[in-house]
Amino acid sequence: MSKKLTSRATDYSKWYNELVVKADLAENSAVRGCMVIKPYGYAIWEKMQGELDRMFKETGHQNAYFPLFVPKSLFEAEEKNAEGFAKECAVVTHYRLQNDPENKGKLRVDPEARLEEELVVRPTSEAIIWNTFRGWIQSYRDLPLLINQWANVVRWEMRTRLFLRTAEFLWQEGHTAHETREEALAEAELMNNVYAAFVEKFMAIPVIQGLKTESERFAGADETYCIEALMQDGKALQAGTSHFLGQNFAKAFDVKFANKEGKQDYVWATSWGVSTRLMGALIMTHSDDYGLVLPPSLAPNQVVIVPIYKSEEDLAAITEVAESIISDLRVKNITVKYDNRTTQRPGAKFAQHELQGVPLRIAIGPKDLANGTVELARRDTLTKEIVGLHDITDKVDGLLHEIQDTLFNKALKFRNEHITEVDTFEAFKEVLEVKTGFISAHWDGTTETEDKIKELTKATIRCIPLNAKLEEGVCVYSGKPSKQRVLFAKAY
Amino acid sequence: MSKKLTSRATDYSKWYNELVVKADLAENSAVRGCMVIKPYGYAIWEKMQGELDRMFKETGHQNAYFPLFVPKSLFEAEEKNAEGFAKECAVVTHYRLQNDPENKGKLRVDPEARLEEELVVRPTSEAIIWNTFRGWIQSYRDLPLLINQWANVVRWEMRTRLFLRTAEFLWQEGHTAHETREEALAEAELMNNVYAAFVEKFMAIPVIQGLKTESERFAGADETYCIEALMQDGKALQAGTSHFLGQNFAKAFDVKFANKEGKQDYVWATSWGVSTRLMGALIMTHSDDYGLVLPPSLAPNQVVIVPIYKSEEDLAAITEVAESIISDLRVKNITVKYDNRTTQRPGAKFAQHELQGVPLRIAIGPKDLANGTVELARRDTLTKEIVGLHDITDKVDGLLHEIQDTLFNKALKFRNEHITEVDTFEAFKEVLEVKTGFISAHWDGTTETEDKIKELTKATIRCIPLNAKLEEGVCVYSGKPSKQRVLFAKAY
Repeated sequence: MSKKLTSRATDYSKWYNELVVKADLAENSAVRGCMVIKPYGYAIWEKMQGELDRMFKETGHQNAYFPLFVPKSLFEAEEKNAEGFAKECAVVTHYRLQNDPENKGKLRVDPEARLEEELVVRPTSEAIIWNTFRGWIQSYRDLPLLINQWANVVRWEMRTRLFLRTAEFLWQEGHTAHETREEALAEAELMNNVYAAFVEKFMAIPVIQGLKTESERFAGADETYCIEALMQDGKALQAGTSHFLGQNFAKAFDVKFANKEGKQDYVWATSWGVSTRLMGALIMTHSDDYGLVLPPSLAPNQVVIVPIYKSEEDLAAITEVAESIISDLRVKNITVKYDNRTTQRPGAKFAQHELQGVPLRIAIGPKDLANGTVELARRDTLTKEIVGLHDITDKVDGLLHEIQDTLFNKALKFRNEHITEVDTFEAFKEVLEVKTGFISAHWDGTTETEDKIKELTKATIRCIPLNAKLEEGVCVYSGKPSKQRVLFAKAY
Repeated sequence: MSKKLTSRATDYSKWYNELVVKADLAENSAVRGCMVIKPYGYAIWEKMQGELDRMFKETGHQNAYFPLFVPKSLFEAEEKNAEGFAKECAVVTHYRLQNDPENKGKLRVDPEARLEEELVVRPTSEAIIWNTFRGWIQSYRDLPLLINQWANVVRWEMRTRLFLRTAEFLWQEGHTAHETREEALAEAELMNNVYAAFVEKFMAIPVIQGLKTESERFAGADETYCIEALMQDGKALQAGTSHFLGQNFAKAFDVKFANKEGKQDYVWATSWGVSTRLMGALIMTHSDDYGLVLPPSLAPNQVVIVPIYKSEEDLAAITEVAESIISDLRVKNITVKYDNRTTQRPGAKFAQHELQGVPLRIAIGPKDLANGTVELARRDTLTKEIVGLHDITDKVDGLLHEIQDTLFNKALKFRNEHITEVDTFEAFKEVLEVKTGFISAHWDGTTETEDKIKELTKATIRCIPLNAKLEEGVCVYSGKPSKQRVLFAKAY
């Protein structure tokens, strides 16, 4: 079985698909557009979940669980939201199968078991949650209501790709209710900050925070905050979004509260989410032609130890050394795996761990035993060195931090080198052809211009960066006046 | 708002429903038979998940994620499994809604967006998982394959009750593949043991391990192990099941492996699951007319501290003492909440924490400040005592262990007092009328007798206990010979 990947230079998209499958992260399933997340991929997702969940709880949010199904009448209540998701939703119409009288051994939908009202499989849960919030909120004492849900959602996408765009995906969706517009806006910003902090600190991916334009906003939102990352092929990826929903859902579901003066008012809302799509961002930011490269903060195994031996005697001596290293590393909360499988040769193990992005590999052979050393190999730089046993714990601990920083800084340098300011539409198109990446350009603020640029170049406005400096200019396409540059890119 | 519950003696079923809703555990949703798990209920479920997940990983299992949908052709592949679940499954037939031309503002299923093949929302995942396993298993080197999934599943139950029986529920489902029949049987037994250990140690619920009769087995299993618990109303509750699936799914999905001799053989399988139904068992085993009683091992807050004050000065002094207690308790990994809400009076706080089953409550007032004491109240016994501040950490730590043991022993005593050996059908019926609980009786081993007894008494065979002593006898109904007593009960 060849583990060799197509190179990124040859075919980036093929490289990605091969890596995802060969590194045992995910694979396509028998259900169109739905993936199977394999144990190794799921272990990385679990680490991401763990950190995010902690960050949500630290900012006062509580987890809950709401139904998978949304009755059609609730689904259609918030008109823009319904319009945005109606075209790609899975609909349950029946609740029973029966033996197919025309096909022995086969089943068919029982025509008599038709639901009175169709159920939409949630593409997002605002409708079912706001219908529930109506019963939970009576007065300002019940606010803010800060809820998060870990769940699966379904959007019937026509063109799917493992992790990046799948018909079913896993995500978390925060849904909060507030007394005032200001509080809800602050919450939406806070959670966008939490996402940025998580993605930068743990995933080692630099992001740009910004606002979406009206046409790129979440269906039903008054404002969408986002974090945008840049992949190695120069395409952008939306890594997370946080929406200020105004009073739209409160009005659609009649959720009012008595304020401190005793007056009834509609509550203000936010929602925010990140999904298994982040796995795609993680892979595409750091990995190379040899396979996955993982930031130590999210690696299921930060270190792997491979014994190299010919005799059982050597193995016993190596195992003794390995166990001592393992116990020292565990004291420092470093996750380490001793790969003493007898079904694989060391070369095959090296190749597998390289492909799966284990940050550090320690090899121990008979020579090392004699010299009191080990061979330490670093996945991100593919470099090796001989390290004395007495130094190994500190060395590993230091290197794991160094790798985490190196990955972030490398991605940051690449991202910064791929933000190009342009002032003409010719230059705009040239960047897309030659250099790719983000294009910082003036835009006249109209959906018309945005659509036209998209039609001509396939580039979209990724975001209006937060806190960007004001600068007088003219729209790169229409020549109309503009006060701030926005970021364009081709995107996943 | 009255928090007073209907008493168990008055109406056990009503008591249960009220408790679930008023203690903020769960509530019914707008979707028939589907519940909303509220934050407090979900926090308990998260604690259960955390312990179970750790136990699964310690026994070598890895988490993964498989699609929500099962294409009809896969669903029907294992005939018995299909037959068992076809009658109660939600079926997706369409992938789009459109504006309803006859009803402005309403949506309808787009008749042109009909799926070529219907998708069943998983009631259980054997079919989709075994279809995937075919690609994962080639040789004995790939075995055992030990996979677990945390997921939502849907079974279109007609009569539903919060946690106990809901159309959608949360669960974990283990799916494993093995080289031999013996290994698969050992795995099924191991996981039933893991469930028993979890339920007894963490939930403080004694269980009886046994085998299901043929008619009570999982659809598609050759053998079903189970753990059975007894609720306070004398009805049994199946708390978890672990299935030996033989080669049924391997044959249905053509999953073969090359054994050590290089010969092809079908693999052997198990599956096992516990669900949010366990929440129902937890509630019904320990709680009382005042509300939920939680074993400390699963309480989101093991201790709550309530300040009792009239002046801001008092509050400041109480807060100082409370913070010192909290920091000492946290060193011992005790979870504690300081309930300093200003929107509620102490009496309302006491009532809420009682209703929500917080194991220990500490109240601190000005008198306590003067005396260097606190008032410590125990939820399970509803007793209070005055404790010196210098003793409080050890006292709390000791009491939490004592409460955990007390709850288990109380439930064990009740359960043991409610196992009645009977040798006549008259006595059998009398127990069901008067004493309820488990009935230990001889049975002739036929489904016919089992069905007849069920029809006449509504009692079912809960299990054939493991390791029960052999004993010659005659069937309580048919008079035919029998070698072992089995356990009957009315059940949830």
